[in-house]
Amino acid sequence: MESGSSFAASTPLPDLDEYVRSSEAWFRSNLQALVEHPTVSPGAVNDTEIRAGLATASEILRSSGADVEIVESKGTPSLMARIRHAQPRARVLVYNHLDVQPAERAGWRQADPFRFEVEPHPERGFLYRGRGTTDDKGPALCAVRAASWATSRGLPIEVAFLWETEEEIGSPNFLDVVRARKDALGCDCVIVSDTIWPTADQPAISAGLRGSLQALLRLRTAEQEVHSGLAGGVARNPVRELCVLATAIDAAGFWHEGVVPPDAEEIASFMRSGFDPHYFLHAHHLERVTTEVPLEMMLRLWTRPTFEIHGLTGGYQGRGTKTIVPHEAELKISFRLVPDQDPRAIGEALLAFVARFNPDVTVTIGGSFAPYRSDPRGRVHDAIHDALQSATGRAPVTIREGGSIGAVPVLAAELGVGVHFLPLSLPDHGYHAPNEYFDWRQARIGMTAFARTFAALAS
Amino acid sequence: MESGSSFAASTPLPDLDEYVRSSEAWFRSNLQALVEHPTVSPGAVNDTEIRAGLATASEILRSSGADVEIVESKGTPSLMARIRHAQPRARVLVYNHLDVQPAERAGWRQADPFRFEVEPHPERGFLYRGRGTTDDKGPALCAVRAASWATSRGLPIEVAFLWETEEEIGSPNFLDVVRARKDALGCDCVIVSDTIWPTADQPAISAGLRGSLQALLRLRTAEQEVHSGLAGGVARNPVRELCVLATAIDAAGFWHEGVVPPDAEEIASFMRSGFDPHYFLHAHHLERVTTEVPLEMMLRLWTRPTFEIHGLTGGYQGRGTKTIVPHEAELKISFRLVPDQDPRAIGEALLAFVARFNPDVTVTIGGSFAPYRSDPRGRVHDAIHDALQSATGRAPVTIREGGSIGAVPVLAAELGVGVHFLPLSLPDHGYHAPNEYFDWRQARIGMTAFARTFAALAS
Repeated sequence: MESGSSFAASTPLPDLDEYVRSSEAWFRSNLQALVEHPTVSPGAVNDTEIRAGLATASEILRSSGADVEIVESKGTPSLMARIRHAQPRARVLVYNHLDVQPAERAGWRQADPFRFEVEPHPERGFLYRGRGTTDDKGPALCAVRAASWATSRGLPIEVAFLWETEEEIGSPNFLDVVRARKDALGCDCVIVSDTIWPTADQPAISAGLRGSLQALLRLRTAEQEVHSGLAGGVARNPVRELCVLATAIDAAGFWHEGVVPPDAEEIASFMRSGFDPHYFLHAHHLERVTTEVPLEMMLRLWTRPTFEIHGLTGGYQGRGTKTIVPHEAELKISFRLVPDQDPRAIGEALLAFVARFNPDVTVTIGGSFAPYRSDPRGRVHDAIHDALQSATGRAPVTIREGGSIGAVPVLAAELGVGVHFLPLSLPDHGYHAPNEYFDWRQARIGMTAFARTFAALAS
Repeated sequence: MESGSSFAASTPLPDLDEYVRSSEAWFRSNLQALVEHPTVSPGAVNDTEIRAGLATASEILRSSGADVEIVESKGTPSLMARIRHAQPRARVLVYNHLDVQPAERAGWRQADPFRFEVEPHPERGFLYRGRGTTDDKGPALCAVRAASWATSRGLPIEVAFLWETEEEIGSPNFLDVVRARKDALGCDCVIVSDTIWPTADQPAISAGLRGSLQALLRLRTAEQEVHSGLAGGVARNPVRELCVLATAIDAAGFWHEGVVPPDAEEIASFMRSGFDPHYFLHAHHLERVTTEVPLEMMLRLWTRPTFEIHGLTGGYQGRGTKTIVPHEAELKISFRLVPDQDPRAIGEALLAFVARFNPDVTVTIGGSFAPYRSDPRGRVHDAIHDALQSATGRAPVTIREGGSIGAVPVLAAELGVGVHFLPLSLPDHGYHAPNEYFDWRQARIGMTAFARTFAALAS
């Protein structure tokens, strides 16, 4: 990217405001079109819905002036699109994903999570309800609309889009996709909006993501369950042994290796973020937490690894008790990792630990993501910062993100450019939860901030 | 019971042998009639099957010369029956239960676990297949047939029967039943056959039962599950905390309090039992065990308390992993207790331990049984010992039983008499397991041994 900027992201752009204001019908109808495809990943078994969603996405992008290419993979395809410019001063790649989390009807107020619903809202304008609205279809459309604006104004910028369809299952084929089309994906920077503000009124730029490492730990001790009176004391109980193993892993040091703690400047930025414990707990429906001290919460969420047990199968799962010794069990675990932890090294340490602690347990290492940390300085960061400030009237703070986006470390490493965040989702939007929504206020901010960022980078 | 005996249990009784040999048709047809009532406890919600089974049982007992009374309770009723004698020299109460474990079709070779099937067998004569055949309907019929024989010979003995219908769910109303009919249940001794030989060829007398104490431990930390990237580190994970709590209970001393170890004489008897680790592991389909040293296995099964986790609900139970922090979980546990442990004291210790360790966990104490130890000496013991030796040609050993029979400590305490065991089931019969069966060899032994015991006690 060329250095030097003659465009301040805070420059008044009355035509942009009008353009964004008049985009609600476009935004709503296209978001509806995307949401009503239940693009739940994995689509590998039956990719019909994913491909139908990709067809709709292609139409939206083509009608916004982009060339579109579907990039096949061993899993479900990715969509690559580009709004060309003859002599661009900047080439930006915007990453989003079209796949969504599963949604069962239980817990949703609407009869069908994949039936798009709109509701007026006094502060947010409209709430757009349905699976995938905030994660990640709404933010994806904001970038498309902003790129259309930049093109219509003839700004010398080329905006490319890469929409994955396997983000929610850990991007197992994303590296292949990027390597296959590496030349075409060449760019000056990548922008990702798939992260979250700390509160509804505090814009933020994410400067780091946690990584993760999943594993399944299995133990079988008999062919079938046995009555605990007849064999208890001799029969090994796999549920009990996996509980003990989980406790040992919890207490072990290996998964803390490699953590680089945040510096004083970053902590100071966290403290300016307005992180609101009450809002956080309410947004995530939490009743009992490890801490309610705001800074400690942020440090735990963004800068510390975790060990989670997602479930322990085996034994009796019905009502009451059945006095059996189970014969097999599976512990479903994952670690969230932070910069500069290495998922491969943690995975090897896990294998070694379990082999010593309980050699009868088999470990299957699952998906992993490297943690990521971006440089919260430089021209792209400043452009996004100023654009968000201009769009919201409030200076964004630099924070981190507790979640993982598998594509981010891949894009950074393969394309050799910085990946920057322009977050648009709010904690109350319900990432991965029932009753997910996006809202018109955030959509307006998103289109405005993307457009101003493009304008700044094109200048 | 009067003292002195002029009858040796080993006296040849050619008419008894002939009586038993000719009883196969009676035994088979009545076992079929009982097994084909699916008398799964609890019958409280719909007691139709239990009552139908009781009606069939009443007919069998009446046609064997007994008066029958149905004793109602807050749960499903018990059956009390008596074959009277004008001037009995002994009054024996035989306890059995008519209820059975649930049986789903999965795992059974026969299409319907409640459809009785018979199969010739080279060593056992016939195998009688179906839920409840060995636990406890087959042994119950052996005692009935033996009492008929004693009556037909005019032996001065009164045999009463008490058949419960809630044994498999922990005998919640048995104390009420016994208290309500305490006078009518008056007897000199109780005989129970609901225990198991150590191997197929080694008769045994059980001199002790383990007790048990069940509990449900629940923890809720949020209204709904939350994405582990968004909230992991702050959200408390109830599955993880219950794993840690289970590990702490496992390591804690409180549930070992009160154990009276076996003396040298009892251990010597265990060592004569012919306990066969290979047979034991095969019979219970065990692949990995805590020990394969025979004496250590017996000590663990019969004389040591255990802590079992029957299941840990909560979180994600499907295939693979879902990276959520669960919001609630339930740990299903029980302890097997041994003489002289007190279930009430262990329950109180559990409540106190959990309250200190993790006060947010709620504990629901479930059913409990006191452990039981009988005196392996005295006239009734000797009569059973000699009768089993005579019926099998082999001296029975005195061992213990790893399981619990709720009725046993109740009968001993309420009636103030000794409870003795005349076990007839084998490990390969499959107590509580799919493909449960009983066999004609054991039925013949059972009728013979009960008849000889009655004869000895009547003399």
